[in-house]
Amino acid sequence: MYGFDNETFLSVLHGAVDNIETIGKVLDQAEKKGYKNVFLIGTGGTYSMLSPLSYLLKTNSTLEWYYDIAAEFVKAKPKKLTEKSLMITASLSGDTKETVEAAEYAASVGAQVIAFVGSEDSPLGRAATYPIANAASNDNLVEEIHIQLFALGAMLMKRNGDFEQCDRFLENLKRMPEVLLKVREQNDERALAFAEKHKDTKFHMFVGAGNTWGETYCFAMCVLEEMQWIPTKSIHAAEFFHGTIEMTEKDMSFVLIKGEDETRPLVDRVENFVKQHSEYVEVFDTKDYALEGIDEDMRKFVAPMVTSTQLERVSAHFEHVRNHSLDIRRYYRTVEY
Amino acid sequence: MYGFDNETFLSVLHGAVDNIETIGKVLDQAEKKGYKNVFLIGTGGTYSMLSPLSYLLKTNSTLEWYYDIAAEFVKAKPKKLTEKSLMITASLSGDTKETVEAAEYAASVGAQVIAFVGSEDSPLGRAATYPIANAASNDNLVEEIHIQLFALGAMLMKRNGDFEQCDRFLENLKRMPEVLLKVREQNDERALAFAEKHKDTKFHMFVGAGNTWGETYCFAMCVLEEMQWIPTKSIHAAEFFHGTIEMTEKDMSFVLIKGEDETRPLVDRVENFVKQHSEYVEVFDTKDYALEGIDEDMRKFVAPMVTSTQLERVSAHFEHVRNHSLDIRRYYRTVEY
Repeated sequence: MYGFDNETFLSVLHGAVDNIETIGKVLDQAEKKGYKNVFLIGTGGTYSMLSPLSYLLKTNSTLEWYYDIAAEFVKAKPKKLTEKSLMITASLSGDTKETVEAAEYAASVGAQVIAFVGSEDSPLGRAATYPIANAASNDNLVEEIHIQLFALGAMLMKRNGDFEQCDRFLENLKRMPEVLLKVREQNDERALAFAEKHKDTKFHMFVGAGNTWGETYCFAMCVLEEMQWIPTKSIHAAEFFHGTIEMTEKDMSFVLIKGEDETRPLVDRVENFVKQHSEYVEVFDTKDYALEGIDEDMRKFVAPMVTSTQLERVSAHFEHVRNHSLDIRRYYRTVEY
Repeated sequence: MYGFDNETFLSVLHGAVDNIETIGKVLDQAEKKGYKNVFLIGTGGTYSMLSPLSYLLKTNSTLEWYYDIAAEFVKAKPKKLTEKSLMITASLSGDTKETVEAAEYAASVGAQVIAFVGSEDSPLGRAATYPIANAASNDNLVEEIHIQLFALGAMLMKRNGDFEQCDRFLENLKRMPEVLLKVREQNDERALAFAEKHKDTKFHMFVGAGNTWGETYCFAMCVLEEMQWIPTKSIHAAEFFHGTIEMTEKDMSFVLIKGEDETRPLVDRVENFVKQHSEYVEVFDTKDYALEGIDEDMRKFVAPMVTSTQLERVSAHFEHVRNHSLDIRRYYRTVEY
């Protein structure tokens, strides 16, 4: 596959799997001090990667949780953040300014901070109470972070008396590296066809919901806008019908992201509508993949990673089809702001 | 002012002010049964109108709160929603399908539901435990709902031992109808100039943060997209720098929404950047208005309504400048979906 190395992919994802035991030990430590609520805090890509964890807690747990953008969190200083809070965050580079500031702020009020980083020896690694390190790259970061975040979420819930399927879920997570590699391979041809078809498309409307909403928002902003300079709008499937629907045109490109959780009918509803009114509707559906080795009732939980892995083949092919490197930026970390 | 009647505006907003006493009585009732957490649930316009209330609770209260899209809430069935929950919602028509279903679902698990409606005799009015009615129209709905939601939030917090400035805040709220009328008048000429300048603009990027983020999202989607069929993207000021920044072009129209809360520096940062790289930057800033009669330290709390009132003059002028009625829809409540 273009721009892809199987061994690197498996090694990064198994690094994440190997951290599951460490995550359990971190929670042992965190429990000693205790926590009454959980803050999921990120910036851009990591903000969106935390979205499925917020959905997991919402639908399965009686833990008290909050989900916020790092820079807003630092300015707003939520009253619920105390020394009895547990903040969860991530940054591959470990130097995303807003995320580092958020970790420092949370630590300053006495909260415990768990941070997933590429290296412990980074500003975020040093600011966190519990840095958990695994090297990754943009091409496998979402899955790598998701394996760890989802394991953390499951173990947090188990300790809270929720999510009795925790242990079986962790076993399924451990099988994800090979499962996801297969999805990449199976989706490669289709991703190339999408990239070729849309090489000159000027605008895409991305629609998602539930635990795949984060990837909907992320792929539109962090890949198409940031790495390919293609304008997008991402809109929640339920919100689509309350304004954005009027943007529907025969030649509007719709990219629908379908997972397998309870909100799937919300995306079905959009699909049903836009297929009647646009000629350019692409549905990336996790149900298209067998996910051999994954228990049927666990599919909905792992769907966000399947989505990312599907879409990352699209990024890869856009790069060569559009002759636009995924690494060049006009502004981000290039000019002063 | 085009398409505007002073008397109607004042009468609708005073209707909201007159409901403050009723809201207090509703909370007396709700307290008898008791509640342990608060759910802010809406759809489209009302989802965005609840956004500043979520910010108010976040920054000032130790109440446990959750904020969600009605249709997702119904599908996801949050575990924290119990008979000890208080759901807060709104729908002017009282028949927004998703919102009605959310109220019915919450009531079915025993939660108490407060709903702001145009008429008690509506599906949402009937589904709610406590319907609170005041007739309004699209042109004054945001301010009308905000007065009531903010009063409710302040009183909820006071009962929780937070927000000691509650009583003074309510006194300030009661002065808002006349204050907002003045903002409309003062902003009219400028709104007309904006509408004329942008009559043929093909795309707008809306940026906001904190308690004016809801209106940023709302105006882009519910007015420009729904009522004027002009494509937009709305992006949080902190998130802008993590992807969408690469969309910046000399001829990209940026509309920045500045309020006066703690997150103002996040929008300042975007302003500073885009003014160097685009020739079309418009900043709607609540600081441009004297807001006579409003205490200095209360300005930040009422800013979301000031923003709405500013932008509603833009809607009004777009209608005649673009010869596009605010009332026509291609799809919404027009075709089947």
